[in-house]
Amino acid sequence: MSQILAVGSMAYDSIETWAGKSSNVLGGSATYFSVAASLFSDITIVAVVGEDFKQSDIELLNKKNIKTEYVEKKEGKTFHWEGVYPKNGDAKTIKTELNVFEFFNPVINKTCTKIPVLFLGNIDPDLQLSVIKQMDKPKLTICDTMDFWITRKKESLLEVVKNIDVFIINYTEVKMLSGKNDLIEAVHTIMDMGPKIIVVKNGARGANLFYYGKHFVMPACPVEKVVDPTGAGDSFAGGFVGYIAKTISSGKEIDFKEIKKASVYGNITASFTIEDFGLDKLKNVTHNMIESRFAQFQDFVSF
Amino acid sequence: MSQILAVGSMAYDSIETWAGKSSNVLGGSATYFSVAASLFSDITIVAVVGEDFKQSDIELLNKKNIKTEYVEKKEGKTFHWEGVYPKNGDAKTIKTELNVFEFFNPVINKTCTKIPVLFLGNIDPDLQLSVIKQMDKPKLTICDTMDFWITRKKESLLEVVKNIDVFIINYTEVKMLSGKNDLIEAVHTIMDMGPKIIVVKNGARGANLFYYGKHFVMPACPVEKVVDPTGAGDSFAGGFVGYIAKTISSGKEIDFKEIKKASVYGNITASFTIEDFGLDKLKNVTHNMIESRFAQFQDFVSF
Repeated sequence: MSQILAVGSMAYDSIETWAGKSSNVLGGSATYFSVAASLFSDITIVAVVGEDFKQSDIELLNKKNIKTEYVEKKEGKTFHWEGVYPKNGDAKTIKTELNVFEFFNPVINKTCTKIPVLFLGNIDPDLQLSVIKQMDKPKLTICDTMDFWITRKKESLLEVVKNIDVFIINYTEVKMLSGKNDLIEAVHTIMDMGPKIIVVKNGARGANLFYYGKHFVMPACPVEKVVDPTGAGDSFAGGFVGYIAKTISSGKEIDFKEIKKASVYGNITASFTIEDFGLDKLKNVTHNMIESRFAQFQDFVSF
Repeated sequence: MSQILAVGSMAYDSIETWAGKSSNVLGGSATYFSVAASLFSDITIVAVVGEDFKQSDIELLNKKNIKTEYVEKKEGKTFHWEGVYPKNGDAKTIKTELNVFEFFNPVINKTCTKIPVLFLGNIDPDLQLSVIKQMDKPKLTICDTMDFWITRKKESLLEVVKNIDVFIINYTEVKMLSGKNDLIEAVHTIMDMGPKIIVVKNGARGANLFYYGKHFVMPACPVEKVVDPTGAGDSFAGGFVGYIAKTISSGKEIDFKEIKKASVYGNITASFTIEDFGLDKLKNVTHNMIESRFAQFQDFVSF
């Protein structure tokens, strides 16, 4: 049995950054998440793709012990996202073609309902709720989201928040969702609703981890050259959840120390992703490379 | 003899933030710097003020062992800055009245030329160069600047850069000045010109310290509520230089470990400044408060 069940999007992306262009490359939240998490744990993906989805991409995932038997292939095209990154600032979406993803309705096969760690990628909160209901008491449920759902489906999203253990959200989103302008107040407002662990991602500015009353702050792991930020957040989530799932399956307790280490692994994993387009770098990263950069990061931040 | 000679602006600021308003309060780069640095070292300020400058403000500085005998009082009004901070993003300048500061021409009294640590606040690089020439081989020269001078007086600024040991600059400015988009490349381009220590301030995102080939990354010290970011950069410089000057005067060597500690002290000092308007918080901070938050920060970042 896999250690993680990941539900999210699989896509083909066309990306333009200051460093160049890359067309129709494998992407999507579930994809980045799984490739990142596979450095630590075994994963089963639940997602939907179109008839154009390449067998070589399935094979790439399978080679990394990512089970794709519940990736449904539907008539039509795979979700397509096209975006341009300015030199400074967030991606500008040029085109979003939902295609088969528009009718995604994740059905969890009976054999998967007992997987101990559930990761809900950034999808419609109503679908996230439906997945939560289908599962048989996972040890840990982690959820990601985005501003789009805060604006369009706030009530459903708040219902999801009540039913999860770990919430991964970005800096501006946690303020939006809570209605509070100060980070710590914003986080505590959300924490009062349910999740006892909140990770606030802040892009190049690093991340803040809140674990019950405790707080861990971390700068982004420095890299020489950022080529493409796409998938950084999902890779962070993958490294983070991947390490937690591994710890759980080894029988260790998930305390503040382990959660902090998990977030550093998330940070390190994401730092590889952004060094090349799409999955070009991440797909060749080994666990040794992760460990060596982990040690380097420890040097970067110790005083 | 003082341990630090600080040359910069003294001002009255009118500030509006999300948290309220504050009118005609004591500000300026030399002021924030000195109040911050006074937590660690003795300082002499070289600056210019107008006839409206309050005796109570002079007394505030003197109580902190900041020597103001070379603060020249000139006919006219003190430099006045008026700015508004949006909820997210940088300050918007509403008004800049240079007043007596327009004709600032720092003359270093003979008794001050042997002060071991020279801090050049953000002023015209031609004035910074003139001060450097008047000094008698300080042990360490630290310089701050801003985008205005990079645009208007790049040649003079590059001449300053050749003659300093430590350059304090912010994230967008180091890219502007070097013409490089990647932080590490940008820093190394500047380092090749002279300074062997570069501190890249990045506001709420923390700071990066480069010491010869070494690199230290630090998130901003978290605070519950940010009230007013004015003076954060100068307070950072003050805590940083204050700690270094103290270390030098105690006879200790300035190695990477000490420089890292200095930048953490800068971070901690700035975290107090932003908790209230102007100097309202910083002026009441004690060395014990600094040490206690230093220990708290160590907890925040350790894993």
